[in-house]
Amino acid sequence: MYQNIKVGFIGLGVMGQSMAEHILKAGYPLYVYNRTKSKSDKLVELGAVWQNTPQEIAQVCDLVLTIVGYPADVEAVYLGENGLFEGARSGQVFIDLTTSRPSLAQELTAKGKAIGVTVLDAPVSGGDLGAKAGRLTAMVGGDASTLDEVRPVLETFSASIQHHGPAGSGQHAKASNQIMIAGTMTGMVETLRYAKANGLDLEKVIATLTGGAAKNWSLANYGPRILKADYSPGFFVKHYIKDLGIALEEAEKAHLDLPGTSLAYDLYRELASEGHENEGTQALIKLWWDQE
Amino acid sequence: MYQNIKVGFIGLGVMGQSMAEHILKAGYPLYVYNRTKSKSDKLVELGAVWQNTPQEIAQVCDLVLTIVGYPADVEAVYLGENGLFEGARSGQVFIDLTTSRPSLAQELTAKGKAIGVTVLDAPVSGGDLGAKAGRLTAMVGGDASTLDEVRPVLETFSASIQHHGPAGSGQHAKASNQIMIAGTMTGMVETLRYAKANGLDLEKVIATLTGGAAKNWSLANYGPRILKADYSPGFFVKHYIKDLGIALEEAEKAHLDLPGTSLAYDLYRELASEGHENEGTQALIKLWWDQE
Repeated sequence: MYQNIKVGFIGLGVMGQSMAEHILKAGYPLYVYNRTKSKSDKLVELGAVWQNTPQEIAQVCDLVLTIVGYPADVEAVYLGENGLFEGARSGQVFIDLTTSRPSLAQELTAKGKAIGVTVLDAPVSGGDLGAKAGRLTAMVGGDASTLDEVRPVLETFSASIQHHGPAGSGQHAKASNQIMIAGTMTGMVETLRYAKANGLDLEKVIATLTGGAAKNWSLANYGPRILKADYSPGFFVKHYIKDLGIALEEAEKAHLDLPGTSLAYDLYRELASEGHENEGTQALIKLWWDQE
Repeated sequence: MYQNIKVGFIGLGVMGQSMAEHILKAGYPLYVYNRTKSKSDKLVELGAVWQNTPQEIAQVCDLVLTIVGYPADVEAVYLGENGLFEGARSGQVFIDLTTSRPSLAQELTAKGKAIGVTVLDAPVSGGDLGAKAGRLTAMVGGDASTLDEVRPVLETFSASIQHHGPAGSGQHAKASNQIMIAGTMTGMVETLRYAKANGLDLEKVIATLTGGAAKNWSLANYGPRILKADYSPGFFVKHYIKDLGIALEEAEKAHLDLPGTSLAYDLYRELASEGHENEGTQALIKLWWDQE
């Protein structure tokens, strides 16, 4: 069934462009839309077809993938004027790859179900490099048999695709992921600050710690970037603030107090307020290393 | 020079027994002392020689290794009545493997230097399993050329031996390690609490997260133990509290505010006050999972 389907892709940021290119190169007819049209140039050159609105995408495609910035953008793309739902028809599948609110994922799934459209939530992790390499991790919520049908398309850019439960579960799994990273990022900056203040060789500390029980991806990957003062975004501070905000909002709904995650959220908002929102999350160290 | 030296070993807890056994099996003549004598039985059976005090150990050995519980125990073993320094003579090497205060390491090194004894600080990480397998990580501070001389002995139980700088630097590196783990442990429990509260399959969440940017040793190793309700100590809560207390004390001396580490310290002290000080650090989840 999913051999010759027309695939739509909405949201051509750094991640989206790489993902769309993988789909195109796998041979699927690809239709694209983005708020800023120029970002589609490269894909159109490679054979993608530009559409003027999400609605038009929905009118021509069988499967539509979306990855935009914020939950408000997801709402606009799906529910807004000229949005996906205005062009939707029974039998279609929409997959939102944006890290967004679980409750919004559930709302879109319910709205789709009412007209015969299956909506899945499938936020991804792995960043710009993972997208480029086609090695993302997709955390999926929603109808499992639909996931099995569209899996070949997701596999063009994913190394791991896990079904985590009903609508919204992909978002909850992604929120869990971001909560874990709050611990590794705050832990990493405190470690580097302590080690530097006590005169240690930071490269040696990173090498030693990543060989034992303190081992983690943040220290191993961002630690060396910090030592080179490389604050370019693998993952934007502003997007991490969005993700942590969603996680804390959902935690509050579940009556969970998450003090470590709250700490990270406060620190990252402070970082953004100092003008670093478009840098990579490793820029957290800048809250201290200008002064210390 | 260090082929036929007599090695002393003080502190035969779970870690110490394994480490001493590795030294013995490598062929070094081994002399042992421990506050509770019965813990030396197995080693004596294997060929180690019991001594009645640290002072006696110092009187017969060329190199003495110590790994005891708290800084106060280190002080007693080195500086107390019948302590190591009472039996010390010029040319000896003492190495403290306990995770202890950097300032105490500096004090012992200075005291040693005054009488021609070289004292190194070399706290280890890797826990009971690492000690058993002879795969510990040793973080060493103090005279580098002495380290090179005694390295073969440390290699009998270490997979990695790093020199981090002058006296106390091994302790600072270990404190850095424990600060990093504060982030991974608090992050892990918040992740599991969030995922559980939102109905996710925790095994699947751990598998997914450990495949990406949230990856860390704590989640990969302690996560599955928590799901099996296995709270047996790889590393004791009470010892982690000691380590975090040292790290925070040193941070304060350096005028560093480490809010994530402070949070972990407070949570672990709360855990201990509820009677869990002799369980493994993964028992942190018990602060919530009785209620949630």
